[in-house]
Amino acid sequence: MDSPAHRMALGDTRSRQVHPDIESERCMPSFNVEQLTNILDGGAQNTALRRKVESIVHSDPELSLEDNYFMTQNERYEAAFKKTFHIQMLAQRLGWSQDSRELRYAQRTLSGDLALGLHRTFLKSIRTLGSEEQVAKWDQLGTKFQILGTYAQTELGHGTFLRGLETEATYDAATQEFVVHSPTITAIKWWPGDLGRSATHALVQAQLICSGARQGMHAFIVPVRSLEDHSPLPGITVGDIGPKMDFDHMDNGFLKLDHVRVPRENMLSRFAQVLPDGTYIKLGTEKSNYFGMVVVRVEMLMDEVLPLLQKACVIAIRYSVIRRQSQLRPSDPEAKILDHQTQQQKLFPQLAKAYVFHFVANSLQKFLHRSYSSILDRDFSLLPELHALSAGMKAMVSDFCSQGAELCRRACGGHGYSKLSGLPFLVTKVTASCTYEGENTVLYLQTARFLVKSYLQAQESTGSTPQRPLPESVAYLTAPDLARCPAQTAADFLHPEVYTAAWAHVVVRLIKDSVYHLQTLMQSGADMQEAWNQTILRHLQAAKAHCYYVTVKIFTEALEKLESEPAIKQVLKRLCDLYALDGILTNAGDFLHDGFLSGAQIDVVKTVYLDLLLLIRKDAILLTDAFDYTDQCLNSALGCYDGNVYERLFQWAQKSPTNTQRNPAYEKYIRPLLQSWSSKL
Amino acid sequence: MDSPAHRMALGDTRSRQVHPDIESERCMPSFNVEQLTNILDGGAQNTALRRKVESIVHSDPELSLEDNYFMTQNERYEAAFKKTFHIQMLAQRLGWSQDSRELRYAQRTLSGDLALGLHRTFLKSIRTLGSEEQVAKWDQLGTKFQILGTYAQTELGHGTFLRGLETEATYDAATQEFVVHSPTITAIKWWPGDLGRSATHALVQAQLICSGARQGMHAFIVPVRSLEDHSPLPGITVGDIGPKMDFDHMDNGFLKLDHVRVPRENMLSRFAQVLPDGTYIKLGTEKSNYFGMVVVRVEMLMDEVLPLLQKACVIAIRYSVIRRQSQLRPSDPEAKILDHQTQQQKLFPQLAKAYVFHFVANSLQKFLHRSYSSILDRDFSLLPELHALSAGMKAMVSDFCSQGAELCRRACGGHGYSKLSGLPFLVTKVTASCTYEGENTVLYLQTARFLVKSYLQAQESTGSTPQRPLPESVAYLTAPDLARCPAQTAADFLHPEVYTAAWAHVVVRLIKDSVYHLQTLMQSGADMQEAWNQTILRHLQAAKAHCYYVTVKIFTEALEKLESEPAIKQVLKRLCDLYALDGILTNAGDFLHDGFLSGAQIDVVKTVYLDLLLLIRKDAILLTDAFDYTDQCLNSALGCYDGNVYERLFQWAQKSPTNTQRNPAYEKYIRPLLQSWSSKL
Repeated sequence: MDSPAHRMALGDTRSRQVHPDIESERCMPSFNVEQLTNILDGGAQNTALRRKVESIVHSDPELSLEDNYFMTQNERYEAAFKKTFHIQMLAQRLGWSQDSRELRYAQRTLSGDLALGLHRTFLKSIRTLGSEEQVAKWDQLGTKFQILGTYAQTELGHGTFLRGLETEATYDAATQEFVVHSPTITAIKWWPGDLGRSATHALVQAQLICSGARQGMHAFIVPVRSLEDHSPLPGITVGDIGPKMDFDHMDNGFLKLDHVRVPRENMLSRFAQVLPDGTYIKLGTEKSNYFGMVVVRVEMLMDEVLPLLQKACVIAIRYSVIRRQSQLRPSDPEAKILDHQTQQQKLFPQLAKAYVFHFVANSLQKFLHRSYSSILDRDFSLLPELHALSAGMKAMVSDFCSQGAELCRRACGGHGYSKLSGLPFLVTKVTASCTYEGENTVLYLQTARFLVKSYLQAQESTGSTPQRPLPESVAYLTAPDLARCPAQTAADFLHPEVYTAAWAHVVVRLIKDSVYHLQTLMQSGADMQEAWNQTILRHLQAAKAHCYYVTVKIFTEALEKLESEPAIKQVLKRLCDLYALDGILTNAGDFLHDGFLSGAQIDVVKTVYLDLLLLIRKDAILLTDAFDYTDQCLNSALGCYDGNVYERLFQWAQKSPTNTQRNPAYEKYIRPLLQSWSSKL
Repeated sequence: MDSPAHRMALGDTRSRQVHPDIESERCMPSFNVEQLTNILDGGAQNTALRRKVESIVHSDPELSLEDNYFMTQNERYEAAFKKTFHIQMLAQRLGWSQDSRELRYAQRTLSGDLALGLHRTFLKSIRTLGSEEQVAKWDQLGTKFQILGTYAQTELGHGTFLRGLETEATYDAATQEFVVHSPTITAIKWWPGDLGRSATHALVQAQLICSGARQGMHAFIVPVRSLEDHSPLPGITVGDIGPKMDFDHMDNGFLKLDHVRVPRENMLSRFAQVLPDGTYIKLGTEKSNYFGMVVVRVEMLMDEVLPLLQKACVIAIRYSVIRRQSQLRPSDPEAKILDHQTQQQKLFPQLAKAYVFHFVANSLQKFLHRSYSSILDRDFSLLPELHALSAGMKAMVSDFCSQGAELCRRACGGHGYSKLSGLPFLVTKVTASCTYEGENTVLYLQTARFLVKSYLQAQESTGSTPQRPLPESVAYLTAPDLARCPAQTAADFLHPEVYTAAWAHVVVRLIKDSVYHLQTLMQSGADMQEAWNQTILRHLQAAKAHCYYVTVKIFTEALEKLESEPAIKQVLKRLCDLYALDGILTNAGDFLHDGFLSGAQIDVVKTVYLDLLLLIRKDAILLTDAFDYTDQCLNSALGCYDGNVYERLFQWAQKSPTNTQRNPAYEKYIRPLLQSWSSKL
């Protein structure tokens, strides 16, 4: 009942009619959109709570996103802080705690266009890496904003390759302090969000040196700005790194440390300690320091990355039922562009991904929650799998979401290039996620290492010795495999077990191949590292196929749990089929290579794929409605619920500073130019 | 001798040493870089002239690009006009004519960051579509900037699909005027560059209505702003369309026409006329109106699109020999990232494309020049092939350049996200070229139609009737074809005839397949248009493969002409091999589908590919040097000739308004936030 109303922008659209071309898409729904929204939200009560938060946020003029597209970097930064400040005031007034669902929904509503994102990462990292006393102390200060934190890992010269970081923290037993220092220009911390102009404290990742020995990366809390007047503290050079492709609202910064002293208590010490005399005590594994990053990678998928693709799909698909172009049959009027196969082929695989990755991110979060407390208690048995899986999924989801958002943008033609469409921001924002929190190629290779290890473990134990079971996500490596795919008909290829098995087959073949090349090189005298580097592209390919397999598997399993909602299950099943088969067609060479699929089978898959596009077409608008983004959150002239695209574009353009401010070039250049020759005539 | 010096930025770098990690890349060149530059420039005298222009431009402080990354849209627009004005003053002083090489070089030097780009398109279109008298009149006015023109085709509701445009020009015989009118909101002209705030005249594409009949699209010159005070003329609503993903320097605009009257002489009438009494006389074909677009599409490749990929390659590859990350062997220091296979795989195919497309654009320009005057003289025999080829090449080159530039950007990790790297601007600019001057999917389908027609023509004439020869670019469709590729060894796959034949085979198979499906549908009762739309994705695939074939073919033929420069030929041949084989690996499914290549042959191709990466590695920096972009033109902290990446990033960031202006959020939000809780303690 209230759903269409709440979805529409306030003020802006109330007086408007819904465009008949989009209204007709909604008049005979094949499934209950509200129920699908509830499933995505994790329950009807969450949907209700989210909408309540949305209506609070949208009714507050201080929290409007309206002018975002007209702002400079400084203005965006200021606006983000204004909103953050108001949200925190709201939170205090309404009793929303810092980790509450309400605050998460508020962030979603504002498209994450807030400050202090890294302040949260700072606090989370302390909770993961700090001792109980440290957590108690800093969490209290941070949660109440008595300090503002950031997480300072990346340096000018090193990012994802942690071991290469150069910042040093040398223990001075005489004063029981660490001396934190940037020894070179490349050691300057570079990129941490909230650092440039805001943070008072930084969690600095630095090479620990104590009793003369280097002990690897550890985390230190370093005060960087005065709590009195916000000026940089002695030994600190701090500032903003300047203009970026996007993230104008965030003050990514640099930090140069000149022998800055912090007390011994400021080294986070859940997994390692330095005693007063400088003795180093290791309480975890070498990898425990990575746990903080694992947590961030898992959480970013649902909160930061996926919404960007979902919104791009909503905007592009809604626009595609308003925009008309050329006829499908000579006597017809111009067709909605969504009725063209070419447009469907561009958009529906993206829509499928927007759903698949929701369930993937969800599943990954559950895995994290299952293992979180045992890892905090220093039981690291699940960490390798969690690390490998989260690395691969972060790489794959961010890669595909970036590609997908750009495809959606281009599918809107010229208007997709206008910031007013909302699409350029989605694209320039999501592409950053391919790099931050771990560069994707490096992350895929983390997955590849785990995969090769698991494969070798499986090979070793195929003899008579009792098998050590493989971790769940790679257990399929030992499952029986067919040499040829038995599917022949179109119907055959719609069985999830058929395409899941096809993906599994390809992964196993690729790993076998990459391991064969690795071992051949080692047998001819190369050491492991050398051999790895020479076969790295093969491992990369195997890891990517493995990730695809994992996502197909997760989505098919999620669908099985929807037995009680057959209509929703049916529509999602089509997206699952499309996703799996699209992957097969895009990577057809991998499936044809050893004859697992024949050319004739690929032709069948292509036919099935084209049929799926037609089936999904009917539900496309409803599937985008189900994400339930408000018009204000989408902030798109093309993507509003009511479909009044062209009026809105024309209206919004008038508000641009290029129209409201006088022409800065006329008097100075245009007029003189127009007169420069006539004077000589 | 003078080449390294001229390449380095003035002032900024003079005092600096070249970084040893990039110096070592240049110390043992396997070919003469200067000679390659000359080849790219089309002769040593052009190189000399270009450098002369560059030194004039770079020594003029009014023409600096330095602050570009810190500017708002209004500031970029003003700066572009300032530069355009100064360039024109220079041109007057130095006697550079409007079509001179000098002006083209000046534009290249300033990365096209100038105003009045569409003014040139306006003039070119008049030269193509106007009668001799019209050309004489308007060319004179335009060349002397007594008027400023734009080309107004795209509307809010229609772009690439010309026939759908709604603007009307109704002939009124009583006054001998056309009434130009926007009948709906979707008919508003939208996107024309230079229109938003600058142009005084627009070349408006409108549906001609005379003597009560609709005659299709024709071009009309419509004055839009007063030459006295620049205010919009009666009946004209004109303005800027607001913020975009890039092209801030250009005032893309909108234009709403309310029954605007222009004299009969303002309809461009080389290919069609309206007599005073309203009689319509056709002098060309229906397609002649497209000729203007063909010219623009051909010229944009070399002048606008390709440099963006080339610069991205220069920046990313130079940065990749400075950045170091992890060891290749345990005892080694950290390796240059360009020594990692993963980085080579990302960058070298882009570098190859940057060269391939140079020769492709060149070849296309020659074809245009060969056919230009005969088309102007209304001999349209070459127009269909020119149209199909230029459409396909525009689509392919802009697609690949966009993908490539983004790959280069991401290959620079986080720093590629900083605007100071220069890469974000290259990416957001080049991606626009996938949409403007014809949306790429639509363009590929133009090529597909030509391809299907040619194929059917070839089929028809295989009987005993004398053959009408196929146009040159599709002549291979009738060449003898092998069922299996005979190549077995690595050396075999380095023969251009082998991979060219492989690409030809795939195209023929795909066309055969798409035509088969088309004809089957038609035999079962569908009309042509319906059948076409249902098989459109197959035609698209065939067209893409055809375009790939054409580019491979053009590059291999260009190499044959380099017999006298064996060292250069060798290094370019490797790029050609890489390009052709990379395409085979990326589309392996197409080659495996009918068994033309076997899995074992694909494995050989992969090995060859990996070997090529290693070979190209040695020449990579020299190949980027050969493009001969100055530091100021690259305007990149990562890509300068001297390799001093980190110092420059650190220095440039300090100049950002986020550091030079006071923090707008501190007093208003940060301080109150820090104190919001403490007051309650």
